[in-house]
Amino acid sequence: MSGNSFGTLYCVTSFGESHGPAYGGVVDGCPPGLQLSNGDLQKELDRRKPGSSRHVTQRRESDSVEILSGVFEGRTTGTAIGFLIRNEDQRSKDYSTIAEKFRPGHADYTYWQKYGIRDARGGGRASARETVVRVAAGAIAKKWLAQRYGVLVRGYLAQLGPLEIEFKAWQDVQANPFFAPDNSRVKELEQFMDDLRESGDSCGARVNVVAEKVPVGWGEPVYGRLDADIAGAMMSINAVKGVELGAGFAAVMQKGSEHGDEMTPQGFLSNNNGGVLGGISTGQDVTVSIALKPTSSIRLSRRTIDARGEATTVETTGRHDPCVGIRATPIAEAMLACVLMDHALRHRAQCGDVTPPVKLG
Amino acid sequence: MSGNSFGTLYCVTSFGESHGPAYGGVVDGCPPGLQLSNGDLQKELDRRKPGSSRHVTQRRESDSVEILSGVFEGRTTGTAIGFLIRNEDQRSKDYSTIAEKFRPGHADYTYWQKYGIRDARGGGRASARETVVRVAAGAIAKKWLAQRYGVLVRGYLAQLGPLEIEFKAWQDVQANPFFAPDNSRVKELEQFMDDLRESGDSCGARVNVVAEKVPVGWGEPVYGRLDADIAGAMMSINAVKGVELGAGFAAVMQKGSEHGDEMTPQGFLSNNNGGVLGGISTGQDVTVSIALKPTSSIRLSRRTIDARGEATTVETTGRHDPCVGIRATPIAEAMLACVLMDHALRHRAQCGDVTPPVKLG
Amino acid sequence: MSGNSFGTLYCVTSFGESHGPAYGGVVDGCPPGLQLSNGDLQKELDRRKPGSSRHVTQRRESDSVEILSGVFEGRTTGTAIGFLIRNEDQRSKDYSTIAEKFRPGHADYTYWQKYGIRDARGGGRASARETVVRVAAGAIAKKWLAQRYGVLVRGYLAQLGPLEIEFKAWQDVQANPFFAPDNSRVKELEQFMDDLRESGDSCGARVNVVAEKVPVGWGEPVYGRLDADIAGAMMSINAVKGVELGAGFAAVMQKGSEHGDEMTPQGFLSNNNGGVLGGISTGQDVTVSIALKPTSSIRLSRRTIDARGEATTVETTGRHDPCVGIRATPIAEAMLACVLMDHALRHRAQCGDVTPPVKLG
Amino acid sequence: MSGNSFGTLYCVTSFGESHGPAYGGVVDGCPPGLQLSNGDLQKELDRRKPGSSRHVTQRRESDSVEILSGVFEGRTTGTAIGFLIRNEDQRSKDYSTIAEKFRPGHADYTYWQKYGIRDARGGGRASARETVVRVAAGAIAKKWLAQRYGVLVRGYLAQLGPLEIEFKAWQDVQANPFFAPDNSRVKELEQFMDDLRESGDSCGARVNVVAEKVPVGWGEPVYGRLDADIAGAMMSINAVKGVELGAGFAAVMQKGSEHGDEMTPQGFLSNNNGGVLGGISTGQDVTVSIALKPTSSIRLSRRTIDARGEATTVETTGRHDPCVGIRATPIAEAMLACVLMDHALRHRAQCGDVTPPVKLG
Repeated sequence: MSGNSFGTLYCVTSFGESHGPAYGGVVDGCPPGLQLSNGDLQKELDRRKPGSSRHVTQRRESDSVEILSGVFEGRTTGTAIGFLIRNEDQRSKDYSTIAEKFRPGHADYTYWQKYGIRDARGGGRASARETVVRVAAGAIAKKWLAQRYGVLVRGYLAQLGPLEIEFKAWQDVQANPFFAPDNSRVKELEQFMDDLRESGDSCGARVNVVAEKVPVGWGEPVYGRLDADIAGAMMSINAVKGVELGAGFAAVMQKGSEHGDEMTPQGFLSNNNGGVLGGISTGQDVTVSIALKPTSSIRLSRRTIDARGEATTVETTGRHDPCVGIRATPIAEAMLACVLMDHALRHRAQCGDVTPPVKLG
Repeated sequence: MSGNSFGTLYCVTSFGESHGPAYGGVVDGCPPGLQLSNGDLQKELDRRKPGSSRHVTQRRESDSVEILSGVFEGRTTGTAIGFLIRNEDQRSKDYSTIAEKFRPGHADYTYWQKYGIRDARGGGRASARETVVRVAAGAIAKKWLAQRYGVLVRGYLAQLGPLEIEFKAWQDVQANPFFAPDNSRVKELEQFMDDLRESGDSCGARVNVVAEKVPVGWGEPVYGRLDADIAGAMMSINAVKGVELGAGFAAVMQKGSEHGDEMTPQGFLSNNNGGVLGGISTGQDVTVSIALKPTSSIRLSRRTIDARGEATTVETTGRHDPCVGIRATPIAEAMLACVLMDHALRHRAQCGDVTPPVKLG
Repeated sequence: MSGNSFGTLYCVTSFGESHGPAYGGVVDGCPPGLQLSNGDLQKELDRRKPGSSRHVTQRRESDSVEILSGVFEGRTTGTAIGFLIRNEDQRSKDYSTIAEKFRPGHADYTYWQKYGIRDARGGGRASARETVVRVAAGAIAKKWLAQRYGVLVRGYLAQLGPLEIEFKAWQDVQANPFFAPDNSRVKELEQFMDDLRESGDSCGARVNVVAEKVPVGWGEPVYGRLDADIAGAMMSINAVKGVELGAGFAAVMQKGSEHGDEMTPQGFLSNNNGGVLGGISTGQDVTVSIALKPTSSIRLSRRTIDARGEATTVETTGRHDPCVGIRATPIAEAMLACVLMDHALRHRAQCGDVTPPVKLG
Repeated sequence: MSGNSFGTLYCVTSFGESHGPAYGGVVDGCPPGLQLSNGDLQKELDRRKPGSSRHVTQRRESDSVEILSGVFEGRTTGTAIGFLIRNEDQRSKDYSTIAEKFRPGHADYTYWQKYGIRDARGGGRASARETVVRVAAGAIAKKWLAQRYGVLVRGYLAQLGPLEIEFKAWQDVQANPFFAPDNSRVKELEQFMDDLRESGDSCGARVNVVAEKVPVGWGEPVYGRLDADIAGAMMSINAVKGVELGAGFAAVMQKGSEHGDEMTPQGFLSNNNGGVLGGISTGQDVTVSIALKPTSSIRLSRRTIDARGEATTVETTGRHDPCVGIRATPIAEAMLACVLMDHALRHRAQCGDVTPPVKLG
């Protein structure tokens, strides 16, 4: 498996750099017959687009996507779906001053040391702008999962820096630029972000994602577990430093009598497992939570070294998200959708003849 | 990639059930010329062996491993290393009463629904006993990493239920059956476990793993990130519900000016990133933390359903670990070692001609 | 993908050396619920067993197979199927004289140069005895393909050295130790082999394999073609130097008007394509032909070099097949069956909702 | 592994249809620091370009390639190399009459039955025009192999229909539109092709490819053999029906004393093995031969069925190569180069510390 691909049967391959001519992706393994248009991808891309509020980067990108293959007369043909997103706003002059310095918290240093060469324009391959490919691929997965199984994948901002946001309603998530699940908190979030921006600093965030109506049985023991693949996919998102399923780290403090979800003929009585037991979906909601570190590019001066290994300082004045977590919700949804679709296909391959013996509810 | 294999170049394939005749594994991709004997594997297997203290399962297994291929006159030949661990204590009568019930928190229900059939003896394939294969494979990886790069992979119990254990010294870890990094806490842990066992309940745990002297440059953008592969590997361990690198979930509350690790010509000034930036190792310690849920098999009675979907209750009276986290340290070490070795080989393949341009220190 | 594994969804992993303690394999991805016993594997292993006639190696091996996992109460559970075949007749003294020489036509030299070390006992990992694993894995695939789709995979010896053997009847194939499809030719073949053995030389062979009742639609464009995977699988068999599908090399001399198989509502009028068009099965017989080189181990003296690079000669006096092609039929069948099963699962994964629009016949 | 990707470490992913907007590819795993420009790819693409003589299709395509990522300031960065080739001459009206018929020898029928839908414009995904992606990816592999190891991959037309062409000189191959290795035969070939075109029929071909200066040691036992991967790669090329290494099918008639290549301290005395023993390169030339079937699209009327399964006839009047083999040489070279590069990287990963113990010559 190449490092720029993921998925076994629903396989996504990605290319592109922040200030190169374009990003693109190839989605392989999508079943034939799915209605699909540029618009299906664009709708999701618009949710993560820069410039949508004053709280995110002001880079101007329409993120217009063009499907180049794999769709004929509005339906997928079963062949590889190639798509392209041209970069439009490539002011790489912004970056010339930092091309020779390693920004703390960035991949500048590791790319330089690994490859002996790096595309320093705007983070190059390490830029979070690569997530356009994930979101586009996730849009296809979301659509197929919804049509074929009724699966619904949705996420929200659960914490912004120190501000925890309790879940109130899904419609709220769509109604504010933070993907916050409680509109009554938006003013507070805006004030926090305005202060943060003014301070020249950045903050972390927590994003929760939920997949509803996932059928029982998806996931493969013992290494190809559904939760293992979800964890890998989530940790591959830029800035993610932690992943939880269900009770997550809270499980450390739980007793077995509290954690183990009891069952009745109507179903499970709780969901500490997060919808996965033994690596296989239970039929409950799959619930995932991720920690995103604060943006590394900040205006405050920081100690670092340059490409010759000498001490220097760096301030980043480009157009950066003060909290990458704000735009992370659609990305996390996309990754979860891709993993679920991969496992839906894998399960069908091996167990296509099995009818689950027990009917709950 | 099959669900029972993991790794791209250092590839581990696993088979076996808790009460079948044997577990076994195949390690493919190990470089030739490494001195290797059954004893190298046995040493690590003995660290996770059942019955080593009263705080873990009393199942009697010598976990004797036999290397069947890939080693000639004491050295690896570069061909597939097959090994076998016979099961000795297979009292499957212990399990007859629960064969028709789904134990809360277990994979009983999901296997049954996925496959329409399951080996119910002692958890079958879902048993944590499968981790013998991981530990054996990890032993080879550890040895090669140490000899070739000086990499040292070690872990410890950081929290037992509510009891946090601050790190004191590595030698302490080897001196108690909990892998606790502070011998002065052992009495307290023993008391806690005795009480827990008596209560018929179980508890969760947190295990930390550290890899020292990992060279800069291991890991592949953008999906084959070192941290993504670590997260997937860790989450594939039985009972793991959460994975963190570096600051982990604490990063949510950090500011960028606090999180982003500054650099000087002598190296990094902190390690919030956990040894990985942009998916590539920084040369710092790789620090990982995992949450293990409480053992699902407890003596307390719990509501559940049977194979016909009808309501019932279940108590588990077999020989189970009251805290699976206690024996998890060698397993987590093994998984980290396997991922690191895989990436060492992957890095050498692509970047074998690169000399890291900057020398720190 | 590791070098000792093959298949994407029906994935076979192999280990073992000619004179090590055992060969073994892991079959991952087999659907659950298939009735399976050691006997199912043994039946196929007995067909390739040494010592079954005076025309093949006289090494004494019962090739007894033991399934170690993945089967419960006589049925596959969907988890990894591990199996073991102990080596019994390991007279490695036979080989001591050649341990320091590179036998012409053997892998001695290439293993030595690649790995800097080799298990020289009887060819080590390069021994054709490794095909026991393939045959065992193929036995499972054959059984599932037959039960699920009615697919029948059979092969025969089409040429022994200079002697072409026209196909007469499948029952003849089972009635002689050559897998020759015409019993009336057996005497001639025996005479040829007796003369060959006496001469101290060896000969090549051609084996044909046919899969009947393969449904239309298996195979993936453009690199994962059914015929591409068949070619790779066949060429991976020891001693194979050429692979053909359908008309094969004869297609070079054909006109398009002759080669392109015409269709009527009843089906195809010919099968020059060999059952595959555009990499996808047509529903016709899949017909494959392979060329096997003459055994490299011969009694005649040959010029070669030793491990120090110095000139010497070598004669091989061990117990070798004078024509490896004679025992190749069950091996080629096994490889074809494994590839077909892999693609059956892959097709079901992606196209499980498609009903082929056209009904022929 | 997805069907539209190939290679483990040098991994090529392809998308595009004959009459869609573009073809494109992603090359992952290329080492950093290789000088690379559009021109490097264009040079090879021009060798397979349509319209270069009257003997091939007259479709007008400049096949202009644009590298979109993975190259910075003229050098590869080690990240994924995306490239695009826009389709220019998409006269799909040419194909309207055959959209509802299955052309004999084409993938029309199998795509239709597999997917229930197909892009019928000019063969869609099954068109041999997809090989632009292979040639572009192969250009990168060729350049790296040549610079890093001095490996030279070259091919030629060995047979055109009934006309065998003996190898005379490499410079002749470049001097005629047939890639024929003997300029004195060109007139004869031209006459043959003119007659063929006039007859409305097509013919098959044989192409030979040779890789010189391949180091000893590339290839992995037992399924990841170098020859197995070559066979799979070659058979994945459109129209290929047979693959040989070294003596190939001639090995059937050889004696062991003739086939097994003897060695002296100066090297091998013959090359019946085709540069591969036990799946590992010997250091000799890797010699491959492939059979290409005659073009299926011919002007002569042929019996077939339509999408409703009813009898009809079809004549193909579009712009087709009367012999696909003529343009196959650069494609076969590309596939061989990609496989070799993949194995160069795989070998370096596992055996990077091994120095081949024996020095020949």
